Amino acid sequence: MRVLAFLDGTLADPEAAHIRVDDLGLLRGDGVFETILVADKKPRELRPHLDRLARSAAMLELPAPDLAAFETAARAVIDNWAGGREIALKLVYTRGIDGDPAGTPTAFAIGMEIDEKVRRARAEGVAAVTLERGFGPEVAERAPWLLLGAKTVSYAVNMAALREAGRRGAQDVIFTAADGSVLEGPTSTVVLARERTLYTPPSTVGILPGTTQAALFRGAEKAGWTVKVEPFSAADLATADGVFLASSVRLVTRVHTLDGTALPDSAELHRELVAAYEGEY
Amino acid sequence: MRVLAFLDGTLADPEAAHIRVDDLGLLRGDGVFETILVADKKPRELRPHLDRLARSAAMLELPAPDLAAFETAARAVIDNWAGGREIALKLVYTRGIDGDPAGTPTAFAIGMEIDEKVRRARAEGVAAVTLERGFGPEVAERAPWLLLGAKTVSYAVNMAALREAGRRGAQDVIFTAADGSVLEGPTSTVVLARERTLYTPPSTVGILPGTTQAALFRGAEKAGWTVKVEPFSAADLATADGVFLASSVRLVTRVHTLDGTALPDSAELHRELVAAYEGEY
Repeated sequence: MRVLAFLDGTLADPEAAHIRVDDLGLLRGDGVFETILVADKKPRELRPHLDRLARSAAMLELPAPDLAAFETAARAVIDNWAGGREIALKLVYTRGIDGDPAGTPTAFAIGMEIDEKVRRARAEGVAAVTLERGFGPEVAERAPWLLLGAKTVSYAVNMAALREAGRRGAQDVIFTAADGSVLEGPTSTVVLARERTLYTPPSTVGILPGTTQAALFRGAEKAGWTVKVEPFSAADLATADGVFLASSVRLVTRVHTLDGTALPDSAELHRELVAAYEGEY
Repeated sequence: MRVLAFLDGTLADPEAAHIRVDDLGLLRGDGVFETILVADKKPRELRPHLDRLARSAAMLELPAPDLAAFETAARAVIDNWAGGREIALKLVYTRGIDGDPAGTPTAFAIGMEIDEKVRRARAEGVAAVTLERGFGPEVAERAPWLLLGAKTVSYAVNMAALREAGRRGAQDVIFTAADGSVLEGPTSTVVLARERTLYTPPSTVGILPGTTQAALFRGAEKAGWTVKVEPFSAADLATADGVFLASSVRLVTRVHTLDGTALPDSAELHRELVAAYEGEY
């Protein structure tokens, strides 16, 4: 099932058309979004997601989104949800109609079911491949027009990378920079575990700050882990105690195979980290 | 005015909603497009545009577009146009509804007026800035998942680059690769003139093959120019006889100022190249 709400809290039929063909979100991928996990009617990390939506919008010089109204829309979706116990809740905010002198953004919240592929990834882990993202890790700060670190709806490359993974017999991707350092997944944050320390790359390398990764680090620290935000290279992945992809709907997904080679068994580590993460809710 | 047609040739109200919020073109920028100039009811370079749409779709592993149907839609827009003598005709083709098992793409053609900014650019030329695109020129062939050379609707970076130009007091952008070589504009192909030879970078550096640039080269060759498709660097721009941006709606636009410095006067050269291009129609 799907539930659609607009920013005034009104519901609408998600199977009806609500968007004009000349919406710049559609014609130009000119908009931003967030995907939030809702479990048992409770949205997780709602404030960090809303803050990131506002940050992405600012990077695209969109009008500042009305976060209270987005919260109203999110609440309307949640209150009217009659599906499973979890919802993948998307908030979308585009530049609106091409040529509109008022520049009124298009904005909505839509709740979707968690699909079977996601449940399988959570339970069984994934095979991932490393794919280069083309950039050096230093370009993000020098070239803000590349929008690295903004969560835009211009995700064609992210989707193409996932198809490339499929062609290589894998389900997910770890992007690497031109110098071999690890960036992020197309829809996730990379977390590496080594000797009771968790590592994730800093957002300054041109990646999205992860909301789920932040929650995981919070929980893991309480459970006695050391957490570090610092660059590491693709070569470090193969020798880690565990490699994980953190994302709102897939939570903390274990990477069991990298570029066709099995990684050390991290199933026990995975249980421990999921428990640390779930302890936050 | 705007005229909207679908692929069966039916017209629809462009100010009404026709797209669902869960269209992957909107949620993921997962689709491709073309913009074609129609002058006096005649679409220019229609076949190259359709071929490029098919090529972009193939790069995104979309179902092969029905080009005859796109032509029908284009014809419906043109036949029902009651605006100015020129139309900016967009063909759009997305992956369709998220989760649709049939995977039916969303497809339409929309005709739009040429705006005042375009007319001014054609007549007066533009100030442009060079902005780095982050990639090396060799990455495109090695990393097809980056979709360099596909005309996707994931254009948020292209739009952000144009806003950056505006902040720097310019109207357009010339993207450069990590090694300083010239790539393309956000919505145009770069053409450099030097000693009766026209140069444009090869698409292998990770850029879109230009339909207007190809028409210009065809016309210029007939007028006695030598044309070369080969890499050149940003440093070559400053010392050229003329720098031009070729695009379907802006035609052959003269760059009069680059990174704040006036380029040699190329107004006469511009008239000559526009005549060579227009001679093709």
